[in-house]
Amino acid sequence: MQIRTSIIGASGYTGIELIRLLQQHPKAKLAHLVSPSNSGSNIADVYPHLTEIIYDKFDSLDIDKIADDSDIIFMALPHGEALQLIPKFLDKHCKIIDLSADMRINDGKTYSEWYHVEHHNQELLDAAVYGLPEIYLHETISRSAIIANPGCYPTATILSLAPLLQNNLIDTENRPLIIDAKSGVSGAGRSLSLATHFCEAMNNFTAYQIGGIHRHIPEIEQELSKLAKRKVQIQFTPHLIPMPRGMMVTSYCHLNNNFSIGQIEKIYQEYYFGKPFVRIMSHQNRASVKSVIGSNFCDIYLSLDLRTNYLTVISCIDNLIKGASGQAIQNMNIISGLHEYTGLQNIPFYP
Amino acid sequence: MQIRTSIIGASGYTGIELIRLLQQHPKAKLAHLVSPSNSGSNIADVYPHLTEIIYDKFDSLDIDKIADDSDIIFMALPHGEALQLIPKFLDKHCKIIDLSADMRINDGKTYSEWYHVEHHNQELLDAAVYGLPEIYLHETISRSAIIANPGCYPTATILSLAPLLQNNLIDTENRPLIIDAKSGVSGAGRSLSLATHFCEAMNNFTAYQIGGIHRHIPEIEQELSKLAKRKVQIQFTPHLIPMPRGMMVTSYCHLNNNFSIGQIEKIYQEYYFGKPFVRIMSHQNRASVKSVIGSNFCDIYLSLDLRTNYLTVISCIDNLIKGASGQAIQNMNIISGLHEYTGLQNIPFYP
Amino acid sequence: MQIRTSIIGASGYTGIELIRLLQQHPKAKLAHLVSPSNSGSNIADVYPHLTEIIYDKFDSLDIDKIADDSDIIFMALPHGEALQLIPKFLDKHCKIIDLSADMRINDGKTYSEWYHVEHHNQELLDAAVYGLPEIYLHETISRSAIIANPGCYPTATILSLAPLLQNNLIDTENRPLIIDAKSGVSGAGRSLSLATHFCEAMNNFTAYQIGGIHRHIPEIEQELSKLAKRKVQIQFTPHLIPMPRGMMVTSYCHLNNNFSIGQIEKIYQEYYFGKPFVRIMSHQNRASVKSVIGSNFCDIYLSLDLRTNYLTVISCIDNLIKGASGQAIQNMNIISGLHEYTGLQNIPFYP
Amino acid sequence: MQIRTSIIGASGYTGIELIRLLQQHPKAKLAHLVSPSNSGSNIADVYPHLTEIIYDKFDSLDIDKIADDSDIIFMALPHGEALQLIPKFLDKHCKIIDLSADMRINDGKTYSEWYHVEHHNQELLDAAVYGLPEIYLHETISRSAIIANPGCYPTATILSLAPLLQNNLIDTENRPLIIDAKSGVSGAGRSLSLATHFCEAMNNFTAYQIGGIHRHIPEIEQELSKLAKRKVQIQFTPHLIPMPRGMMVTSYCHLNNNFSIGQIEKIYQEYYFGKPFVRIMSHQNRASVKSVIGSNFCDIYLSLDLRTNYLTVISCIDNLIKGASGQAIQNMNIISGLHEYTGLQNIPFYP
Repeated sequence: MQIRTSIIGASGYTGIELIRLLQQHPKAKLAHLVSPSNSGSNIADVYPHLTEIIYDKFDSLDIDKIADDSDIIFMALPHGEALQLIPKFLDKHCKIIDLSADMRINDGKTYSEWYHVEHHNQELLDAAVYGLPEIYLHETISRSAIIANPGCYPTATILSLAPLLQNNLIDTENRPLIIDAKSGVSGAGRSLSLATHFCEAMNNFTAYQIGGIHRHIPEIEQELSKLAKRKVQIQFTPHLIPMPRGMMVTSYCHLNNNFSIGQIEKIYQEYYFGKPFVRIMSHQNRASVKSVIGSNFCDIYLSLDLRTNYLTVISCIDNLIKGASGQAIQNMNIISGLHEYTGLQNIPFYP
Repeated sequence: MQIRTSIIGASGYTGIELIRLLQQHPKAKLAHLVSPSNSGSNIADVYPHLTEIIYDKFDSLDIDKIADDSDIIFMALPHGEALQLIPKFLDKHCKIIDLSADMRINDGKTYSEWYHVEHHNQELLDAAVYGLPEIYLHETISRSAIIANPGCYPTATILSLAPLLQNNLIDTENRPLIIDAKSGVSGAGRSLSLATHFCEAMNNFTAYQIGGIHRHIPEIEQELSKLAKRKVQIQFTPHLIPMPRGMMVTSYCHLNNNFSIGQIEKIYQEYYFGKPFVRIMSHQNRASVKSVIGSNFCDIYLSLDLRTNYLTVISCIDNLIKGASGQAIQNMNIISGLHEYTGLQNIPFYP
Repeated sequence: MQIRTSIIGASGYTGIELIRLLQQHPKAKLAHLVSPSNSGSNIADVYPHLTEIIYDKFDSLDIDKIADDSDIIFMALPHGEALQLIPKFLDKHCKIIDLSADMRINDGKTYSEWYHVEHHNQELLDAAVYGLPEIYLHETISRSAIIANPGCYPTATILSLAPLLQNNLIDTENRPLIIDAKSGVSGAGRSLSLATHFCEAMNNFTAYQIGGIHRHIPEIEQELSKLAKRKVQIQFTPHLIPMPRGMMVTSYCHLNNNFSIGQIEKIYQEYYFGKPFVRIMSHQNRASVKSVIGSNFCDIYLSLDLRTNYLTVISCIDNLIKGASGQAIQNMNIISGLHEYTGLQNIPFYP
Repeated sequence: MQIRTSIIGASGYTGIELIRLLQQHPKAKLAHLVSPSNSGSNIADVYPHLTEIIYDKFDSLDIDKIADDSDIIFMALPHGEALQLIPKFLDKHCKIIDLSADMRINDGKTYSEWYHVEHHNQELLDAAVYGLPEIYLHETISRSAIIANPGCYPTATILSLAPLLQNNLIDTENRPLIIDAKSGVSGAGRSLSLATHFCEAMNNFTAYQIGGIHRHIPEIEQELSKLAKRKVQIQFTPHLIPMPRGMMVTSYCHLNNNFSIGQIEKIYQEYYFGKPFVRIMSHQNRASVKSVIGSNFCDIYLSLDLRTNYLTVISCIDNLIKGASGQAIQNMNIISGLHEYTGLQNIPFYP
């Protein structure tokens, strides 16, 4: 039996990454690939690399038809747009995996403050589960009609800090956690802007949304606070790396007590026991984004400075896979009763 | 009158950057370009881009001859090697600008611990001045026989934090300052290694020397502590950006009091008044390394998070210019009674 | 039933690409991964991206053991070395797919002239088949004990010109065919050299082995001559693109008669009918290497200049896949009675 | 005495490269920097790297004022727009250096066919000189009111072939000359397009305008034909390299007679004797774009294949300098009675 899937917003980078992964998935079938802005165009004309692979055209948004033909709907739309469509698909009893931010902030008011979009539908938010399957119970994910698929920065950050916060190992009371994040350019999407012009981004490294204003902050704080069972604040700076894919997050944590690096590593190993996509790496003096690109892995590197009792935690993901489309399929697998790694066992693409 | 200069270690990336800048300097003249490993080779064979610009061969190390022909000696050797040669040039009454780390750590024991090289010549260290002309008096630099030219990470870090520390604005007592640094690949030099193989470094972003073990740490702490007039510790992580040149340092500072961003900016503006190479940038939401590449500028971006009272300070330099060869020439200018920006007014190379 | 495979020379870039593809192949099993220079090391220490994927160590070269455990041996050694080993594996009745140049030149003397390695074993050469499955009969490939897996430049060039030469459509008598080729840097391998140093290759584009001296020339001429049934000469220039993977070959062909572009396209379509890895692309005004990266495709673009009656033919491959390891597995599939695309249906990795 | 200069179209990449070079020119002074689309904006807001270097705003187009304040006008507008403005500046007795294509094609009809813009002003075309100072007499350039500054592809191509054509050394009668050209992305300008989106251009290499349709073809053929004193046709394919700057042109020439490579090199050396920006490089087996980036050099590499009697000629330029703004300033120098290299002696920027 096959899982019938449709993608709303199929022509962006997360959309085509979903197409790539679903096309190679042993149990999934692509029903509708919807792109309002490209509807009627051959997909292989918009993305020539899909020539002789995808023969379809981008569909327009016909909710009834899509709902009829799909078991699972992936929403890969800009924030604010998913919000409008989700209730309509829910009415048709579709399961929804939303890759936008619209369902991730539990509190509608907080969402509105950070995204400058009104969010009156608190009920919808209450129905959503945060789809980070290494942290949330698979049962919970399975039962929910809406999966709020985590953002790329939150995924890398939360996975790297969860064992520390849940075990109450670090000091987060007086100061924000310092989180310095770096992303490949595809995170900015395919739409045109000066910041993603080749000549501007190449040979460049930029920081943006400096000073605690990036929209992923409330999402990260929400999830870290749940793990810590108290309010956690972060000081978060995103940066842009001159490469298409990949993400590294470097976090600085003051340990509450004296530990050896071996003890810390053991805590991480135990925390992620049985989680196939988290690798606790033993190469403490060099952490490398390239080791995960093309895969659904989240690699974690731990280094302890005995001079300061600070733990530096580094996590690496492919922002389009574990940070978006791969994680969405991981959630689809869980919902569908498959092993979570089905169709996601791609080895990193190297070099 | 011309300044006769020689470079010991002229065939590395800082060496050829010195050649480029000195060749275009209105008052400098290249005497000897010494490269023990390439001596006798035409410089334009080793670096074809210098064809019809430099007709000389790399010289071997003839101390007497070099000393006779030179007013100023630039040492661009690996650490440990400068240490051996400097006394010999001092005996000949040369002025020395050392781009290695050998003269930067005031205390020989600390140097030995971090560099694993014995340093018995404390007298030599005492004779050296730390050549950061935005912080140290030009008179002091002028008078010293040895200029310890700062490293690239220390330059970017110290310039970005000096106004805060000297004015006692940030809390450094209980916790280390968090400093997250990113450098282009040329910082690793021209010698061959897997880490600088194109296929390994491209589409990659790495952290290295994680957990407080990078050798620039004692140099940075020494200078920050002098500025703060108390011991300052740092938590420092260097990263490698897939681009040849450029450096960004992101620092996270907890303010002691409540300030507006305008007040902070004013403090920086006043601190660097009359310093032609430091630019306090007003583009708070985007900081860009590319804006300094090819120039001797150090750009500083300031962002204040009112939620946390943390100031995020970002500084950008060209690691081979303000982080090495440009700063060396700035020091040469000062020693020689020229304006510090002589020959260093290159506009950033864009795009 | 599984195909037991071993790789001799498993630690280079074609070696690890074989590992990646074989690991994901539904019918193949990795037996021995041999790297004389790394034997005894954990593969995941040499290539950290393989952590928790490959748990083995690199093996040393134990011919008896390897032969016992393997149905197919992939030789991914530098030229000159395969030559020595192949007879030993043949004696043990292994099937060999050789990714080096040692078996590709039918005439031992020509090989010796271009590769400066003696080749006394003409019998061995006579036993080998040139493993380009779009051109050579699958039956022939199946029957041969040695498959000479084509080089990257020859694969892209031959596939793009075969329909023209076999149908005698272009003038090759008085002049060489002009072939301008461009490759990603991984073609140069993982061994260290100044040409592959990041700072030298980045922001650079080089031509090398200019003037008809590249070693792939006799291989290309041999195969084009067979297709044309007369001696074909080429003027071939390889260039290096600042990116890890991918290859484009631009060829300039004077048509013997007047054709429309539609007629030419039809000839290509028919020639490659039923060949799943060759795509005749319809985007005549823009050809893009990125459209094949990560896949076993060879894309061909055709443009006819009516002013000159010249056909410009452009072909694109991933040099490590269709140009090396993917093609080797395609040959393995054919030998093993599988469909040639088994395990090779990866969609291009985009963006 | 200073040369007062203005730039019309100052906010594109050739515009800001003109600003950079003129700002560092010992005899030039910037009067008006005109950008209709950015008029009124601080230049340093549009290009932050010019902070504290250029304090002006972009001007609007006030022809009277500009003409009053300027000795020389640089036109850096899209084709079709220069055509409209030039007569108005000529009326005011300004000298014009036009970086667009509007004045380069001697025949208005040919221009109209290739550029799809009407060109009724044949008189204007007759008044213009093609500003390639290595080929055209400096006296002619000096006397002309309009300098048609050559395009980037034409500059690299013509300089690399002129000695062969003027000395009648190659066969151009029966076949087109094959010219395979590769350019960095800045040639496409700063305006936004999918082809210059970072994620599309990075890790990619494309051919575009394939099959003899690129607009620089008539310009190249016009100039090569003049040099050869007969009609020369070319088969020209432009490609895009994933790097911001630089250009390589590879040409394939069948020699009429037997020459040694030494004889050919001598002919080139003599042809370019006294031309400071053309370097005949002796590194025949490796040609490198990086060796010219940041400079006004045109490097030429020659390789002779004795098997085929074909000469492969490779030329490299920085497309924004010798291919645009540097050459424009070279023309300004000539007009102004300065040595042509004044202000253009920048050493290539390496690495």
